[in-house]
Amino acid sequence: MGGKLKEDKMSDLEKKSIDPATIKMLKKAQVDGCETIFDRADTMKPCPIGAEGSCCKNCAMGPCRVPAPKKKGETGAEKAKRMGLCGATAETISARNFARMVAAGTASHSDHARGIAEVFLATAKGEVPGFEIKDEQKLYQVAMDFGVEIGDRPVQDIAIDVGHKAIAEFGRQEGETIFVKRAPLKRQEIWRNLGVTPRGIDREVVELMHRTHMGVDQDYKSLLTSAARTALADGWGGSMISTELQDILFGNPVPVYGQINLGVLKKDEVNVVVHGHEPLLPEIMVGVVHDPEIQKAAKAVGAKGVNLVGMCCSANEILMRHGIPVAGNFLQQELAIVTGAVDAMVVDVQCEMQSLAQVAKCYHTKLITTSAKGQN
Amino acid sequence: MGGKLKEDKMSDLEKKSIDPATIKMLKKAQVDGCETIFDRADTMKPCPIGAEGSCCKNCAMGPCRVPAPKKKGETGAEKAKRMGLCGATAETISARNFARMVAAGTASHSDHARGIAEVFLATAKGEVPGFEIKDEQKLYQVAMDFGVEIGDRPVQDIAIDVGHKAIAEFGRQEGETIFVKRAPLKRQEIWRNLGVTPRGIDREVVELMHRTHMGVDQDYKSLLTSAARTALADGWGGSMISTELQDILFGNPVPVYGQINLGVLKKDEVNVVVHGHEPLLPEIMVGVVHDPEIQKAAKAVGAKGVNLVGMCCSANEILMRHGIPVAGNFLQQELAIVTGAVDAMVVDVQCEMQSLAQVAKCYHTKLITTSAKGQN
Repeated sequence: MGGKLKEDKMSDLEKKSIDPATIKMLKKAQVDGCETIFDRADTMKPCPIGAEGSCCKNCAMGPCRVPAPKKKGETGAEKAKRMGLCGATAETISARNFARMVAAGTASHSDHARGIAEVFLATAKGEVPGFEIKDEQKLYQVAMDFGVEIGDRPVQDIAIDVGHKAIAEFGRQEGETIFVKRAPLKRQEIWRNLGVTPRGIDREVVELMHRTHMGVDQDYKSLLTSAARTALADGWGGSMISTELQDILFGNPVPVYGQINLGVLKKDEVNVVVHGHEPLLPEIMVGVVHDPEIQKAAKAVGAKGVNLVGMCCSANEILMRHGIPVAGNFLQQELAIVTGAVDAMVVDVQCEMQSLAQVAKCYHTKLITTSAKGQN
Repeated sequence: MGGKLKEDKMSDLEKKSIDPATIKMLKKAQVDGCETIFDRADTMKPCPIGAEGSCCKNCAMGPCRVPAPKKKGETGAEKAKRMGLCGATAETISARNFARMVAAGTASHSDHARGIAEVFLATAKGEVPGFEIKDEQKLYQVAMDFGVEIGDRPVQDIAIDVGHKAIAEFGRQEGETIFVKRAPLKRQEIWRNLGVTPRGIDREVVELMHRTHMGVDQDYKSLLTSAARTALADGWGGSMISTELQDILFGNPVPVYGQINLGVLKKDEVNVVVHGHEPLLPEIMVGVVHDPEIQKAAKAVGAKGVNLVGMCCSANEILMRHGIPVAGNFLQQELAIVTGAVDAMVVDVQCEMQSLAQVAKCYHTKLITTSAKGQN
């Protein structure tokens, strides 16, 4: 590549972000010959029909591409041409595609919550070394919401009952998600009138996947109403359960000062990035990183110690509870490795780009996966 | 349209099916100016990338189009060009898309089963007029599988326990689906070794939706293994539960003679087509169609009576239990209306083309929806 071309490319990279650290690493990646999402975004040509959400692959007759109307005053015959094989219109197809995004999002968030509830119960039973009930006041508050008797019962017994009740919310087959009653009464009434009060968390996801299948719910309005109910099953079910149980297990966060961006990586320490979504993994890592044995091992290879930093959602969990620095956001996960300073990146689920394995190969970084949900 | 063109079109239609009744109705639809799926199949141009399953819309960065490799001996650099923004390869994307098809299929089949289980329990409690426990022997058999005590308990009590156990299978959060133990021991061992023994039905669907999200399970092998587990959750969970409970409620089917195809519609009777998927609706219709009041109403308008026929999956349910004729298969649902002989088509969920509303408007047919899953 000629000098001019290379200069042009470097100058292009400066327009990719307003963050100097990101631009610096994009230039380094360019020099190192390491491809990142910024390169792929340049070459990827999004499908125009897919982008407007009116491509349907929900049954085996497709894929059907049904562009949205381009003009006003379309005739009936013109409209008839814009139908999937089953007769689904662009409106139905877009609503189904959007609803499936909601189903996947609820499934993901709430499956995280299920994992937390399982660990919470195991912790309550004393089966998880290193974890404990940290916030008893919050436990009592949740116990009251769940209708668990407090009285003079031992904390452990209350926690076990709360754990069972929390897990049951995912499989609930009758009635509404318990936390719905935390909403203002007026809001609860609006939800009931609209038919969007969430029932069991898993059930809402499954019914939405059913409704969006060929030949079931064909009306974009009821599809979107069901999507709203499913989203509420996450917001007032899964997400709220995980937030509450995480606070009980790991402590209620308070405002802390934090350091953010790639500069939190240290030249003279072993840099470990914990990246992903659920707080279980980063909490364990916060607990072990100061272990004398680990510190000794770092010093034995000439480092001053181990520098644990977070990335993406995992980062927020340990920033707000322990003040651990945040190395970057979703778009910086590859760039952290491009610094050449990351010795290990430890990941769980969600937000990990598949390209991390490729980028890690360009440097000395060890990429360590930990979740059973990313393997057989 | 000129005479020659019209002749060509008619001759084209003769190649659309090997069934003379279908061809006859396709020609009638042409003359009537009524569009069917056969017309739409002619004009729809499937997306080549979508058809091979390597278009990804699983996160908001997409849609990413990643064509499968066209040639052997692709270089690493060429392969790198064929990645989604997150780095997902064609293999990962195809596996995720396929897995989501499995999730939707399991959700649909098993949501049908949930509906049956709910009606079964309500019937056991004596809350559903017209339905009863028809096959007590089969009830005892399922009770034994479910670990429900038989002894000298009343049938009703046993049925209530079976109903509760069946419903609990959908929300199960621990252990394996009960009917797994019906499989040969050797098969159960293979499933456990592969990690595909299904757990709770809803849970498998939700976890698969989670795994297929951006940044979670990125390996096509484990994605497909999870899809297999989810499929088994339907086959040995949802589908098996619905089959068993339907047999107990409506009777175990035995071989019967049946009449099939559009010719089962009658010139001199009120023709009612029941179309869809779940046996609940057609069973009710079989029960009421011979009601003297209904027969009287039909005769009052000059018809000899009411001719109830089935369509698609619903048809099989009442063919095998009552010998009710089958008017046609999935691709004939519009054509039944095109005959001009159908007075009402009554539908529940799954398999109903959205175009039915359009086709019904061309004739005098009333299209009647019945499922809460197709509305708010």
